Amino acid sequence: MVNQEMLSYGKQASVIRELFEQAKREKKLIGEENVFDFSIGNPSIPTPEKVNQTLIDLLQKEDSVLLHGYTSSAGDLTSREAIATYLNQKYQANLSGNHIYMTVGAAASLTICFHALIEEGEEILCFAPYFPEYSVFAHKAKAIFKPVKCDKDFFPDVQDLEAKITEKTKIVLYNSPNNPTGAVYPKERLEEIAALLEKKQKEYHHEIYLISDEPYRELIYTSTPYPFITNIYDNSLVCYSFSKSLSLPGERIGYIAMSEKMKDVEDVFAAICGAGRNLGFVCAPSLFQKLIPSVLGITTDISLYQENRDLLCSILSQLGYEYVKPDGAFYLFLKALEEDSLSFSKIATKFHLYLVPSDSFGCKGYVRVAYCTKKETIQRSKDAFRQLKEYYDEVKK
Amino acid sequence: MVNQEMLSYGKQASVIRELFEQAKREKKLIGEENVFDFSIGNPSIPTPEKVNQTLIDLLQKEDSVLLHGYTSSAGDLTSREAIATYLNQKYQANLSGNHIYMTVGAAASLTICFHALIEEGEEILCFAPYFPEYSVFAHKAKAIFKPVKCDKDFFPDVQDLEAKITEKTKIVLYNSPNNPTGAVYPKERLEEIAALLEKKQKEYHHEIYLISDEPYRELIYTSTPYPFITNIYDNSLVCYSFSKSLSLPGERIGYIAMSEKMKDVEDVFAAICGAGRNLGFVCAPSLFQKLIPSVLGITTDISLYQENRDLLCSILSQLGYEYVKPDGAFYLFLKALEEDSLSFSKIATKFHLYLVPSDSFGCKGYVRVAYCTKKETIQRSKDAFRQLKEYYDEVKK
Repeated sequence: MVNQEMLSYGKQASVIRELFEQAKREKKLIGEENVFDFSIGNPSIPTPEKVNQTLIDLLQKEDSVLLHGYTSSAGDLTSREAIATYLNQKYQANLSGNHIYMTVGAAASLTICFHALIEEGEEILCFAPYFPEYSVFAHKAKAIFKPVKCDKDFFPDVQDLEAKITEKTKIVLYNSPNNPTGAVYPKERLEEIAALLEKKQKEYHHEIYLISDEPYRELIYTSTPYPFITNIYDNSLVCYSFSKSLSLPGERIGYIAMSEKMKDVEDVFAAICGAGRNLGFVCAPSLFQKLIPSVLGITTDISLYQENRDLLCSILSQLGYEYVKPDGAFYLFLKALEEDSLSFSKIATKFHLYLVPSDSFGCKGYVRVAYCTKKETIQRSKDAFRQLKEYYDEVKK
Repeated sequence: MVNQEMLSYGKQASVIRELFEQAKREKKLIGEENVFDFSIGNPSIPTPEKVNQTLIDLLQKEDSVLLHGYTSSAGDLTSREAIATYLNQKYQANLSGNHIYMTVGAAASLTICFHALIEEGEEILCFAPYFPEYSVFAHKAKAIFKPVKCDKDFFPDVQDLEAKITEKTKIVLYNSPNNPTGAVYPKERLEEIAALLEKKQKEYHHEIYLISDEPYRELIYTSTPYPFITNIYDNSLVCYSFSKSLSLPGERIGYIAMSEKMKDVEDVFAAICGAGRNLGFVCAPSLFQKLIPSVLGITTDISLYQENRDLLCSILSQLGYEYVKPDGAFYLFLKALEEDSLSFSKIATKFHLYLVPSDSFGCKGYVRVAYCTKKETIQRSKDAFRQLKEYYDEVKK
């Protein structure tokens, strides 16, 4: 007698979560050191000392009624202005605190944007592979979710975007650095997307919003500057979360930033406020909002993730696995050794390897390896990856 | 080109928020001490020292990766079990941590319940006067929102409930202690509601869920025990927030507790998990979840609100105003001195009194006086209330 759709979502745990729970059970049985759990994207590096120290300072020194009180629904203006100033300096952007909306993390940033922008039956186009929850959020906002292809480097295929775009397209969504591939989309590719959307906006006489979901923005292992989307396309929104950069995933703090050049930016901002209100987000957690101005530009020790990546890549290369070296995030997208990635993921668990099959990411034949683990886990997984490879070499004979 | 409904919600600030902003502007012009802002329900008493101290201890002593990490979507099991144990002891209830779901505050508790339980076109019945956002949340969940009358004490009119209930009724919602009246619904009245719903469930062959929204549960100024709904009706859910009892409204921490005797409780719990996921609530803020076990049963110094209430009542009685003395929360529902409460609220601002007209609470002819202010504000408001009364006495001549 409950809502049947919500019931089915609640009953079907995500594949990631299922593997994670299975790994947890196996750790209890055979010891943590013998299980190689690459299932979940949970940051393993502690938050910078400055984060905890600033929180303590706020708790000790600030007026408690103000510190823990309601902020405006869009968030504390001091925090929003600090974020705008920081992004303007770092990316030569042109943002205003007035059009930054603080959220309870990246998922909330996305659901609020979708509900604010979509009318029933309009389309959200998204490059595959993509984070599986996108389609859940899109569906709840009554949008039609349409995946768009990527090329062999896992960069957006702009031709396929052009083929898939229709008059009903309201949002194009991308995620870079990408979960699950770790690909960092190049500036040129985003410029091509922007040019195409400009053309299509004129053709269809309405706005098409480009949303960049970028919680992994600070986790990049090359020196190429990150292409900030509001500098490239006017009708763009940035969805951000401090979950990964500050290792605060449970604290739920992020923001939506709107381009100042967006058409009817005041209306878009108002619709975002309206959607936040309708969905029951009163304001983002106040203490964490007030933390932000002191820790902008600070990150956890990202070099540890880079070391993990390099170690994992070297192991996989030595063993003859196929993958595209990831430039960002903490995921590697590994070619499965058989066509059916679910079967491959299942076989891998025989060797205590927990790898997420790619089907739920909208793409077949791969597994996602989340390397935000202890370095020792990667080191010790080498034998397991070898045995897995040998198993398939044997099968093919 | 944005979603038109979300735009209109975003553009129309709530009446409460509008009055609050107007009062803020006037304070700047004529001095804080000359403005009597009774508009907003923002707790004015600091959080107990133990809250800040426990947060500091957690930040200093806990492993930061665990402390700030994702919890399960339903929340940290230790916190959920602590809440169940506390409620079972305090109210002789029979709850389990397995069916408690941690939320980002009371608004989220309600939106998640509505989306989990409602299929499009089903009804949510609610006793008027009620908190205006209820109808916003109900509408977003595609429910039909139907107000039910209260009697002269602002207690539920069970006859009117019986008249309004239909086969489409899925949820009956109440809020006690009540915002805006401060009424605490008596046990007997809730038992009558439960008996009616039992009868109607049999008649219609489906469940009718009774939701108690009770963020003001600890703010009661009588010694009558609070009637805990899961002891009275099986298909019941409690929506709670620590915003008022611990003066943490900006931190967004609360829960949904389900009766263990609920029909298909596992399905209801799963639907709630599904709705939370769909709306973009990944988990409640982790640090504040972990605070909870140490501060259950502790509240801010409620006696200060009681002193405010008594002072306000004595002033209003002396001046000949009509109202029902509130037993809980920090609101008093005052009979307006003309039929049109909007006009009355406007006239009141001439005397620097900010009182919320009752129309948005689903009831005409009253204003809500939020007495969670400094005591001095109430003391000094006496002249303003006198002048307002004299103004109307003059008009009536």
